[in-house]
Amino acid sequence: MSALIDTLRKNTNLLSHSSMEEYKYIPPHVHNLPNMDDVEEIVKLIKAIVFPGFFGVAGINENTQKYYTGVNIEKLYLLLKEQISKGLHFFNEQVDEQTTNSPEEISLTFIDKLPEIKRLLCTDIKAVFDGDPAARSYGEVIFCYPAIRAMIHYRIAHALLQLGVPVLPRIITELAHAVTGIDIHPGASIGEYFSIDHGTGVVIGETCIIGNYVKLYQGVTLGAKSFKLDEQGLPVNIPRHPILEDHVIVYSNSTILGRITIGHHSIIGGNIWQTNPVPPYSRILQQKAVASSFTDGLGI
Amino acid sequence: MSALIDTLRKNTNLLSHSSMEEYKYIPPHVHNLPNMDDVEEIVKLIKAIVFPGFFGVAGINENTQKYYTGVNIEKLYLLLKEQISKGLHFFNEQVDEQTTNSPEEISLTFIDKLPEIKRLLCTDIKAVFDGDPAARSYGEVIFCYPAIRAMIHYRIAHALLQLGVPVLPRIITELAHAVTGIDIHPGASIGEYFSIDHGTGVVIGETCIIGNYVKLYQGVTLGAKSFKLDEQGLPVNIPRHPILEDHVIVYSNSTILGRITIGHHSIIGGNIWQTNPVPPYSRILQQKAVASSFTDGLGI
Amino acid sequence: MSALIDTLRKNTNLLSHSSMEEYKYIPPHVHNLPNMDDVEEIVKLIKAIVFPGFFGVAGINENTQKYYTGVNIEKLYLLLKEQISKGLHFFNEQVDEQTTNSPEEISLTFIDKLPEIKRLLCTDIKAVFDGDPAARSYGEVIFCYPAIRAMIHYRIAHALLQLGVPVLPRIITELAHAVTGIDIHPGASIGEYFSIDHGTGVVIGETCIIGNYVKLYQGVTLGAKSFKLDEQGLPVNIPRHPILEDHVIVYSNSTILGRITIGHHSIIGGNIWQTNPVPPYSRILQQKAVASSFTDGLGI
Amino acid sequence: MSALIDTLRKNTNLLSHSSMEEYKYIPPHVHNLPNMDDVEEIVKLIKAIVFPGFFGVAGINENTQKYYTGVNIEKLYLLLKEQISKGLHFFNEQVDEQTTNSPEEISLTFIDKLPEIKRLLCTDIKAVFDGDPAARSYGEVIFCYPAIRAMIHYRIAHALLQLGVPVLPRIITELAHAVTGIDIHPGASIGEYFSIDHGTGVVIGETCIIGNYVKLYQGVTLGAKSFKLDEQGLPVNIPRHPILEDHVIVYSNSTILGRITIGHHSIIGGNIWQTNPVPPYSRILQQKAVASSFTDGLGI
Amino acid sequence: MSALIDTLRKNTNLLSHSSMEEYKYIPPHVHNLPNMDDVEEIVKLIKAIVFPGFFGVAGINENTQKYYTGVNIEKLYLLLKEQISKGLHFFNEQVDEQTTNSPEEISLTFIDKLPEIKRLLCTDIKAVFDGDPAARSYGEVIFCYPAIRAMIHYRIAHALLQLGVPVLPRIITELAHAVTGIDIHPGASIGEYFSIDHGTGVVIGETCIIGNYVKLYQGVTLGAKSFKLDEQGLPVNIPRHPILEDHVIVYSNSTILGRITIGHHSIIGGNIWQTNPVPPYSRILQQKAVASSFTDGLGI
Amino acid sequence: MSALIDTLRKNTNLLSHSSMEEYKYIPPHVHNLPNMDDVEEIVKLIKAIVFPGFFGVAGINENTQKYYTGVNIEKLYLLLKEQISKGLHFFNEQVDEQTTNSPEEISLTFIDKLPEIKRLLCTDIKAVFDGDPAARSYGEVIFCYPAIRAMIHYRIAHALLQLGVPVLPRIITELAHAVTGIDIHPGASIGEYFSIDHGTGVVIGETCIIGNYVKLYQGVTLGAKSFKLDEQGLPVNIPRHPILEDHVIVYSNSTILGRITIGHHSIIGGNIWQTNPVPPYSRILQQKAVASSFTDGLGI
Repeated sequence: MSALIDTLRKNTNLLSHSSMEEYKYIPPHVHNLPNMDDVEEIVKLIKAIVFPGFFGVAGINENTQKYYTGVNIEKLYLLLKEQISKGLHFFNEQVDEQTTNSPEEISLTFIDKLPEIKRLLCTDIKAVFDGDPAARSYGEVIFCYPAIRAMIHYRIAHALLQLGVPVLPRIITELAHAVTGIDIHPGASIGEYFSIDHGTGVVIGETCIIGNYVKLYQGVTLGAKSFKLDEQGLPVNIPRHPILEDHVIVYSNSTILGRITIGHHSIIGGNIWQTNPVPPYSRILQQKAVASSFTDGLGI
Repeated sequence: MSALIDTLRKNTNLLSHSSMEEYKYIPPHVHNLPNMDDVEEIVKLIKAIVFPGFFGVAGINENTQKYYTGVNIEKLYLLLKEQISKGLHFFNEQVDEQTTNSPEEISLTFIDKLPEIKRLLCTDIKAVFDGDPAARSYGEVIFCYPAIRAMIHYRIAHALLQLGVPVLPRIITELAHAVTGIDIHPGASIGEYFSIDHGTGVVIGETCIIGNYVKLYQGVTLGAKSFKLDEQGLPVNIPRHPILEDHVIVYSNSTILGRITIGHHSIIGGNIWQTNPVPPYSRILQQKAVASSFTDGLGI
Repeated sequence: MSALIDTLRKNTNLLSHSSMEEYKYIPPHVHNLPNMDDVEEIVKLIKAIVFPGFFGVAGINENTQKYYTGVNIEKLYLLLKEQISKGLHFFNEQVDEQTTNSPEEISLTFIDKLPEIKRLLCTDIKAVFDGDPAARSYGEVIFCYPAIRAMIHYRIAHALLQLGVPVLPRIITELAHAVTGIDIHPGASIGEYFSIDHGTGVVIGETCIIGNYVKLYQGVTLGAKSFKLDEQGLPVNIPRHPILEDHVIVYSNSTILGRITIGHHSIIGGNIWQTNPVPPYSRILQQKAVASSFTDGLGI
Repeated sequence: MSALIDTLRKNTNLLSHSSMEEYKYIPPHVHNLPNMDDVEEIVKLIKAIVFPGFFGVAGINENTQKYYTGVNIEKLYLLLKEQISKGLHFFNEQVDEQTTNSPEEISLTFIDKLPEIKRLLCTDIKAVFDGDPAARSYGEVIFCYPAIRAMIHYRIAHALLQLGVPVLPRIITELAHAVTGIDIHPGASIGEYFSIDHGTGVVIGETCIIGNYVKLYQGVTLGAKSFKLDEQGLPVNIPRHPILEDHVIVYSNSTILGRITIGHHSIIGGNIWQTNPVPPYSRILQQKAVASSFTDGLGI
Repeated sequence: MSALIDTLRKNTNLLSHSSMEEYKYIPPHVHNLPNMDDVEEIVKLIKAIVFPGFFGVAGINENTQKYYTGVNIEKLYLLLKEQISKGLHFFNEQVDEQTTNSPEEISLTFIDKLPEIKRLLCTDIKAVFDGDPAARSYGEVIFCYPAIRAMIHYRIAHALLQLGVPVLPRIITELAHAVTGIDIHPGASIGEYFSIDHGTGVVIGETCIIGNYVKLYQGVTLGAKSFKLDEQGLPVNIPRHPILEDHVIVYSNSTILGRITIGHHSIIGGNIWQTNPVPPYSRILQQKAVASSFTDGLGI
Repeated sequence: MSALIDTLRKNTNLLSHSSMEEYKYIPPHVHNLPNMDDVEEIVKLIKAIVFPGFFGVAGINENTQKYYTGVNIEKLYLLLKEQISKGLHFFNEQVDEQTTNSPEEISLTFIDKLPEIKRLLCTDIKAVFDGDPAARSYGEVIFCYPAIRAMIHYRIAHALLQLGVPVLPRIITELAHAVTGIDIHPGASIGEYFSIDHGTGVVIGETCIIGNYVKLYQGVTLGAKSFKLDEQGLPVNIPRHPILEDHVIVYSNSTILGRITIGHHSIIGGNIWQTNPVPPYSRILQQKAVASSFTDGLGI
């Protein structure tokens, strides 16, 4: 067994922070890691508060739901203020208490936003239901559709980001990304009645602005074309993602890049690479493919 | 702490069902929510029944497997009839008992279909193995390949849907979608020896008809182009997805939309947007890309 | 209840290995199934060893981390040698002990590679951070970005594969694939400072060779065009995936197929289907789409 | 492995219900087994309802406790009616619905008794606290003292038994017996301000009647001396355990047997075997022991 | 934090095996610790095999129970042979393979004893039921009575001990001791139709011999009076506990010490200290207590 | 369902703190409830630190144990300071920080006592082993014997109490009491080489003083006879339990009450009620029982 002990000792030292040049890019640790399980619990509680008949322990009827909602809001408050505190100290241990609201204040303000978050989600649910002939009820859409799961996470994360909470919003959207394949940056701005069909592979960048009644299909990217570097060679965080006006539809696997505007009521077909703006009421289609018959038994 | 109490009381009321116009789209709750954990257990049991050496507790040898299969079928029956009952009452509390089979009957009939489901899955496993030079054994394909996981879920869900079970089939395919990124609607009809490579982003719509020996790559969409609305402005559920005849191959990220037929032995290249039918033995390729050299140091 | 008993008995027999022709493709069971939970634990331990401040129980300070690392390396050793042993016997029960290293030796050699794995991952983290204006710190990148999760799994799996361990590498990359939608074959060869943005739908094939400072976007496929069959009609495992030289960028949803070389400093735009080699400093863009205005209220 | 198969088959048959004469004493199974986990959860919920600051999730303050209590009462109702239903069918599958209250009615009536149960337990807590110089606060008594745990279980079980619920009461007191070593039959009748010190080994029989302000020490038995047999030779269930009037104290390890009355304000010393009644204000002590000096180095 | 590091380093060294004289009594570790969870699982499996309607997952009816029993016997075999192997190596790493049966053989022989264990337990259940007017059914006795739990553990442990398995038997009876307060040494020999009432505090020593139809009450000790020391001053393991012939009853808290015989049909009253043999048909009662009236308000 | 709502509302109000006179004995809640799971974890960690080969994850050999001990001491420190802080605030929210050591200081001082605690426990293990002919190794004694479990808990709790920690010590001994039936108050003072045989029902009071080489059997009570009340009628906490000098043995179920001294080398037989002091080298036995023959077929 001495081989193990030797290996163990040698590598324990080699893996220490100062033993290699490249290790120094990375801080040895961050000060306040948010707790992943608690962040997941926060999202679960909000789901139970916002759609009490569908998530959490369903109350027997509408009267008892009030008790559950009260309990869940208190639990949410307790978890949220703790994780927000960790988020605030994630990047630097010292937080300027003059200019930053306390975790308690932020949590209460966030709870005040829940009715509006619920309202927006109701419009998304209606949009998904109206757009899918296979959907048989609103309940099925809430319960089964990945797009709604992604939107619940996004709308929570967006509200937290607007209140100045760091890191947590990103964790919350990544939790949805992992399960749905839909990657919406919490900084994006998305209007009412938004829907995504199927959704795997959708990417919506940080500075996107999306109007009302917009619909995306799976694999759509709303991304950045390129970005400026500052004097230290680091990327500059400026508006660099598309603007989609009301009633735009983008079909599957299309890529729209850069700070361009897709005019209202436009339809972008599938598998398009779009880096130029589009006026309202446009229809954009891929060049016709090259077709040939073959009997050679070979592939492509 | 009174701030919390005030926030809690105010928002508990604001979040109640009747406080906002948009909330009314959504029912306050559904009658019979299927239990997610039980549905996952149902799939696990079926996997242990169908491939006893690979899932569940492996028996020491083929003789003891029979005992395990017996136990697992009984457990499956008990869980299935309960969740089917919830599924049957999901959309409306009253089920017409004259025209609908009982959960017990449906469960027994489903169990009778397991040998055929196993047979079809064996052909899928063979197809995946034959098509991947990196695969070293059938066992590895069953144990590691996401396509097989997706097909197990789909073939279970399809059989349940054919027996008239609502909601459950969709939940079962969404469970696979979340893990594999492969979204197959349980209503789709898929033949033997079907394979998907890698799979993330694949979408197969509700009314697709897929023949035998078909192979799809990642990111392929078999979707609907548009749909009719009925008199109330709701979408009409009619055949609207492609038909792929035998021996068709579709490469990655291509989109095939509408009730069109892709003739047998055709090859659809990658990144194609296809909305027209294709005769047998066709080969469809994207228009040649525009290439240029650059030394300007800029992006695109 | 006799209906259940009858169904149970009948199907228990029908599902037995010899009852249908197609069942015989599939072995009744494999000899040594790796334990999925243990493999997940192995990856967790390596993450805690390599980035102790971010994964696992964080030590109070850098002094106590050494104790944790010692404990984690021993736990890793114990789990790894057991699972490697199962992997070695997965395909055939008899392993040639002359030519194969023992699980203990392989485990110790793998542990010796951890410092280099850590070094490579540090370059990947730097590459992701430098390429994303939305990233605020290295810590956030390690903690939240799916690309880093995928690269941790890949670099572990690649090292194990190089040591001759079967099956386990594939399981480890599939674990990341399921969560991130990024499917990197453990056999691929990937240089330093590699980054993937968003990542869902990325596929990197078994024989890919990727240089340094390469960046991929979501939905990119580096795949095989077609493959030779041997005399038994089985696919031959030869180099069949692309070579990407240093400083190549590939935008979202593009498909690059076959043993072709993409020259250094080239940029491949999005939604491209590329099956021909590309010289250095190239810029490849999709054919311009067909645009039209419409006011007819119809879709596409 | 065939030895295992043979052993397995042979003993599976031998263990079947009809293979031995003695097996037939025992029914092959009962109809409705209560669920142990649910019964434990029922007791936990009642503890959280009755002493909300000490068990369950403590609310932040007295205002939010009301929400928790509402939620817990509903949860209790749901679990209780299900387990009561199983209890009612435990002995015979057919329950006379004319003469038996429904599980729903019994559950509601039981919930109505919770305030009185809480009141009685408050008197027990005061009695324990007043009688132990080592106790520093009421809170410590509720939180740490096994006697209070036993009394919570007993007072719940006694109330359920009075409402005609079979089996459940016994399970509930056995749960406390297992942890505290205090075995109180749910049929016993116990007054206010009852206390037990230490408690291990205490037995209180089914037909005991205990007044107010009674205190028992560890190891005390209030048992039955002998019992009549009926015509079938089965024991007859008649009053057969002691009556302890108000203010009685019984010291450790004493045994009081039979339907005798221990008069009020009596003290029974330790290690007594008492089968005769005792008038009020009595003091009963063991015969003085035989003492001798010894220097022989031997034991007894 | 340096205080913690100092404390940690200093005490880590002080706690090492060689730092204090007294530490050397204790081996630094034993070679093969049985796994407590697995031993608990073994007992659970045996309970499900022996009383399938009462423990484990109850089958729907007697037909499906056979499948469950088959599965449970195989699981039992796998766990048992592993834990027996650990038990055999607990005291010394080298086991004489000539004279000791293999863990596999012992496990199979033990499984062959299960029908007889079940038969004996059926007689115990009958004895408990016949002796308790409060018992309403055999099912209740199996399901709720701690005496039956203790006897199941004892009869398993006794059979394993007879097969030469070390350590495991003791662990199994201690598991029952912890929950029931009944401490039966696995070496004791106990006949048919044995019952214990309430049970807390019962102790039955290693070399006890107990006939048929014997009944003990809570707190009864069948112990050793004193024991010889060998030349090294260590106690000699010879017969030193009582023999109870058929139909003996011992009431609560009595202590019977030494290798004495209690003749058949004798009754030992409660709180007796008995170190002399007793002829058949004896009745032994404690000296009458000293009673006095008191009005002084003092205790004893 | 309105019946449930009415019941729920009515009883939620009735159960509130102010609704009944008796409720007011009890505080509505305590300020800082220790976390039971964390306290259990603390004991587990100490067991793994003190006997690393027997509890916790056993290291492969003595070299790696040092890493485990380091990790466990840090974990212990983190949990302990948190629970000590809760303990310090349990009785009153304001703690005088002048006179009370900080939780951090107390935790470090406690860790410094672990080597001495280990030394004492080693003497107890030796005492148990030497006194039981059935014990085959020290390892078996550590691993299986309830007396050792009780002594580990007691010696930890006693050390914490000496450092001024409230509540936690009592919780720790009650955890052992629940499993072993041995109730040792953390305030008792117990010397070296202490052993308890079987143990169920043993009670050792708060102010006991026990010398070296003392042995108790099951059911022994070292209790208080009576106690003085102060002016408010509350019991006064003064020395009131027995003193046992070195080499005393007390047999099963005996009760020794009051501040009396049992002289060194004395033997107290079983079932004794002792309230007077005993000189050294005494032997105390119960009065001889009353024996009679009977053939009447009746009980007692």
